[in-house]
Amino acid sequence: MQFLSDNTSTACPEILAALEAVNHGRVHSYGDDEWTQRLERCFGDYFATSVRAFAVATGTAANSLSLATLSPPYGAVFAHREAHIETDECGAPAFFSGGAQLALLDGEHARITPQGFAQALADHPSVNVGLHSVQPAALSLTQMTEHGTVYRAADVARLCELAHARGLKVQMDGARFANAVAFLGCHPADITWRAGVDVLSFGATKNGALAAEAVVFFDTTLVRDFELRRKRAGHLFSKSRYIAAQLLTYLESGLWRRNAERTNALAQRLAQAAAQYLLHPVEGNELFLKLGVERRQQLRAAGFEFYDWGPPHRGEARLVVSWDQPAADVDALCAALARL
Amino acid sequence: MQFLSDNTSTACPEILAALEAVNHGRVHSYGDDEWTQRLERCFGDYFATSVRAFAVATGTAANSLSLATLSPPYGAVFAHREAHIETDECGAPAFFSGGAQLALLDGEHARITPQGFAQALADHPSVNVGLHSVQPAALSLTQMTEHGTVYRAADVARLCELAHARGLKVQMDGARFANAVAFLGCHPADITWRAGVDVLSFGATKNGALAAEAVVFFDTTLVRDFELRRKRAGHLFSKSRYIAAQLLTYLESGLWRRNAERTNALAQRLAQAAAQYLLHPVEGNELFLKLGVERRQQLRAAGFEFYDWGPPHRGEARLVVSWDQPAADVDALCAALARL
Amino acid sequence: MQFLSDNTSTACPEILAALEAVNHGRVHSYGDDEWTQRLERCFGDYFATSVRAFAVATGTAANSLSLATLSPPYGAVFAHREAHIETDECGAPAFFSGGAQLALLDGEHARITPQGFAQALADHPSVNVGLHSVQPAALSLTQMTEHGTVYRAADVARLCELAHARGLKVQMDGARFANAVAFLGCHPADITWRAGVDVLSFGATKNGALAAEAVVFFDTTLVRDFELRRKRAGHLFSKSRYIAAQLLTYLESGLWRRNAERTNALAQRLAQAAAQYLLHPVEGNELFLKLGVERRQQLRAAGFEFYDWGPPHRGEARLVVSWDQPAADVDALCAALARL
Amino acid sequence: MQFLSDNTSTACPEILAALEAVNHGRVHSYGDDEWTQRLERCFGDYFATSVRAFAVATGTAANSLSLATLSPPYGAVFAHREAHIETDECGAPAFFSGGAQLALLDGEHARITPQGFAQALADHPSVNVGLHSVQPAALSLTQMTEHGTVYRAADVARLCELAHARGLKVQMDGARFANAVAFLGCHPADITWRAGVDVLSFGATKNGALAAEAVVFFDTTLVRDFELRRKRAGHLFSKSRYIAAQLLTYLESGLWRRNAERTNALAQRLAQAAAQYLLHPVEGNELFLKLGVERRQQLRAAGFEFYDWGPPHRGEARLVVSWDQPAADVDALCAALARL
Repeated sequence: MQFLSDNTSTACPEILAALEAVNHGRVHSYGDDEWTQRLERCFGDYFATSVRAFAVATGTAANSLSLATLSPPYGAVFAHREAHIETDECGAPAFFSGGAQLALLDGEHARITPQGFAQALADHPSVNVGLHSVQPAALSLTQMTEHGTVYRAADVARLCELAHARGLKVQMDGARFANAVAFLGCHPADITWRAGVDVLSFGATKNGALAAEAVVFFDTTLVRDFELRRKRAGHLFSKSRYIAAQLLTYLESGLWRRNAERTNALAQRLAQAAAQYLLHPVEGNELFLKLGVERRQQLRAAGFEFYDWGPPHRGEARLVVSWDQPAADVDALCAALARL
Repeated sequence: MQFLSDNTSTACPEILAALEAVNHGRVHSYGDDEWTQRLERCFGDYFATSVRAFAVATGTAANSLSLATLSPPYGAVFAHREAHIETDECGAPAFFSGGAQLALLDGEHARITPQGFAQALADHPSVNVGLHSVQPAALSLTQMTEHGTVYRAADVARLCELAHARGLKVQMDGARFANAVAFLGCHPADITWRAGVDVLSFGATKNGALAAEAVVFFDTTLVRDFELRRKRAGHLFSKSRYIAAQLLTYLESGLWRRNAERTNALAQRLAQAAAQYLLHPVEGNELFLKLGVERRQQLRAAGFEFYDWGPPHRGEARLVVSWDQPAADVDALCAALARL
Repeated sequence: MQFLSDNTSTACPEILAALEAVNHGRVHSYGDDEWTQRLERCFGDYFATSVRAFAVATGTAANSLSLATLSPPYGAVFAHREAHIETDECGAPAFFSGGAQLALLDGEHARITPQGFAQALADHPSVNVGLHSVQPAALSLTQMTEHGTVYRAADVARLCELAHARGLKVQMDGARFANAVAFLGCHPADITWRAGVDVLSFGATKNGALAAEAVVFFDTTLVRDFELRRKRAGHLFSKSRYIAAQLLTYLESGLWRRNAERTNALAQRLAQAAAQYLLHPVEGNELFLKLGVERRQQLRAAGFEFYDWGPPHRGEARLVVSWDQPAADVDALCAALARL
Repeated sequence: MQFLSDNTSTACPEILAALEAVNHGRVHSYGDDEWTQRLERCFGDYFATSVRAFAVATGTAANSLSLATLSPPYGAVFAHREAHIETDECGAPAFFSGGAQLALLDGEHARITPQGFAQALADHPSVNVGLHSVQPAALSLTQMTEHGTVYRAADVARLCELAHARGLKVQMDGARFANAVAFLGCHPADITWRAGVDVLSFGATKNGALAAEAVVFFDTTLVRDFELRRKRAGHLFSKSRYIAAQLLTYLESGLWRRNAERTNALAQRLAQAAAQYLLHPVEGNELFLKLGVERRQQLRAAGFEFYDWGPPHRGEARLVVSWDQPAADVDALCAALARL
């Protein structure tokens, strides 16, 4: 039974059906087709505001292209030390931006705190040394975070306020955005543009798509730069309809919510079973457990696959529930946890 | 009736069926799955040699990642003036490599000649000024070319020989590789590794896939560098099986050849009908016509879509036959050409 | 007797004296000193307008930093095929800008013509293919050119007008700017801001300084970006006074003009002696001769050092007169030319 | 009285005399002159081994060019959190390398400890996530450190051993290398190649030169790559003799040692006077004092200039003794410290 990551999952039948549904007729390439054209209206409806939205196929592309649009090569992007852009994208933000540097922040449960961010802005070398230092350019928030926790709307708003007051733009890495919305029970707008977010990497792949993410600009002034960077990076797809179709179905059919609610609920059951081992509150579809090396080994011996978290000797584990996870897997894991 | 580009086509039913066929079970992500693992053997069989092969989703990614692996930032990549990497990728090779420069060559019908290449090597500024100039690093050949012509195996071999003698690696942009093989009736090996090609961008998207290309290394020494660059550029897909499945089906079912043979044959019919207007020999699925502004307009008025080629005033046109082009489109176009 | 290049010369005694003159007292570093502060006023006087001016130590730094400020990574910089930024800076513009590409123009005697530039703008791929191509961003003019010729003020004005009409900025590579002004007998303003130039790389090293160039912004909106790029590239000097002092002396003492007038005049004498071999009009301190391989060899045997120009077999030669060239060298060379 | 930085100082008379001494005769440019040619032998003598050595004009250039030679764009360079390359070079290492990332280490008094480095290597994300992370490529040590302390030879050796065991190269930022050697009383070889250092940024500017640093390769395999990067970055000087002359004089006249011994000794006197305020051991020419905001203000009111260190509210100060610091300044400061 496999709890490695939500990106080990299949694509939803609805998503594959959507590919079939658009698979007729020759249409203009590179996004000049009816489905891609409809994408922005669809995201506009979803967010209840006017947006510019662009499809890409990987989360790294979404994050790095948007950050490269927000930060000059000599910019600093504030991010949590556990952020995916720091730990798991092989330095992509620096590559796409021409060298922008991440300024790493601490914060419990992988959440940046307004206090921590304010302090980091105040202490940033640029304050003292001016142009001898990289220049604060953007704040990147991960929603939900890399520790499976969720920023409340008020926290996002406070962080955006601090960023904007210093002239920084705010990007949100929403690889698991649906899980965050489902957890909060809020409107997608509440934790994005209403709170001040300028650009969102909107993930769909982990939550049921085949390969589809979107970059959603609430601040639309930088869109031309983004489009040229996307093309230049090989992330503009000739047969764009097949990514667009995934995103349209994901949004319009309510798939985003159904899948996220299901995985969140299953994760809550696991959270109860594993309460004594929890390193972080379970607010989405991920659990982080301090099992110790031995119990971790027992779980694996019992047939459960999952990743070590951090250096092996720390005895920590991450378990992720996928949209296509059989409920029986969760039952079995609950039982196994009880037996530890 | 639409002759804009082969990338305006749909995906083959076989390709969509392949996506369905792998859509079961959670598997390791990022390529550690049975289908992706099988890809290298499959390409090995196809090329009758041992290779390393990597899936990406766009031709720009395939070309730029492979060139970045072959050329240092201060490298010069020799390419034809009409090459896609020069005219249609928004400077991607420079972006991926950190600044490598294209050294542009002329040559009839978009083919580099051994004489032209030898001369360019002899005249390259680096010969005179040493490290004041960028340094020759790679040769990029487009097969089939941007003018719809095909290099013969002996030409590829001679060009590779010249390149290797000067320490340059050879990359082939094979966005329409299948059309070239179908035209020559040769073995895929004959115009690649047997002729000296080091790395191939193997295209499938234009010829029936949804979004799937491969980078095939015949010289496998640089693979680790490539893999890191691919990840860093956001071109490593988490749900890798869905690209792998496209490529496996494309190769194993013979789709690559069937589609290429069909479009080549349809294009030959058009070539006969348009013989007096041909700018270049028709050796694949593309025609380039010197129609003049007026006849071009007539064709469009008759319901045919295609691109101007070059500046509008030149009166040139490109027409491309897609794998899913109805034969009736070709009939109609032949008739319309006769009426001009 | 050595006619290799003007950068093989010594530094003027006045320049070394200037270094001595500022060599007292500890002052703030990185340009916050009285001499560096005075530089902008001094350049303002020189150009009879308000400017922002920044010292760097090499021409490559001046050119590349200014171009990186004018062009995004996906920009195209129009330049003559013979431009130093194309042939002799090892791809520096691409490095500094993150990948900007040179769009090369022909033009007799290394001068871009308004017609040629207008045509290149009209034919640029971006017109047809939009964001699939790099985007025209800047025009770079070399004054005096790499073939020793000089743009007239009206030509510069016409070229700038064409550039600005398309939204491009204009940079001038003035490594031998003094020679051009001396030849034209114009005011420095006439061939720069009055003609529409936005940024000038102002050279002093070749014409008598030790190592000092300036980047002079007539369009001052991009200065902050430039300053950060300069620092980041290691071209902001801690002991800035020693570059500033060179430039102040060079401008204020009239050295720039004296040296340029002298080398221009000596080159005119050579031009008369070599009239039958001239490849280009001699308008500054450089001569380009079509000698043939044999005569070139005879001159060298007679004790003259100079560079082959282009591939050796072409039999061409470049000879450059330096500010410290003994008049006797010129006499001897005239005599030797007469004997050929 | 000014204790802001050692780069606010003048150039030594010996250095200016050296410029005069080479200011005769036209010589080949770009380093093909007798003085530049002699540089490698001179550094070879200095380090008692065969080296390749290259002159540049700023410390940022020396550090970044050498790091770019050691690290691929997807590399991680381990460095202390206080390192100049992190805090004061505006992201230069990322710019020069095409995106390499600094992995920051803590360590008392700005010294990396073998334990800390070993732990960081063990905990590096690449261990767990493979190519999803940047790849450890180099270790950068600052000698003397940014807190004015000095690594002992055995520490350098242990750190290099750890680095090499993992395939990392070692670069040393020696902007104040002379002060470190003077403090240790060791041979320059002892803390460089004998301890395992692969490349050294050898500083002379702060210690009496006008603008001269050298990159010294003990591992000479990467020299060609470095030379091309230097040219491409605008750091190859046409009139190379004037940098070479500075370095030759600096080394051959013993200036490096005399100046360093003098400033170290003066700093020791200050260290005694400021003993109760010292944040770090004084091992070179820099003092870091925890004065509190009020005392800091008193010192300034008494006529002493120096920088705040860190955020102003922390009340910390850095004072640096320059090679040309009048002894009277030090007397006065000692007295003022006593009066606080």
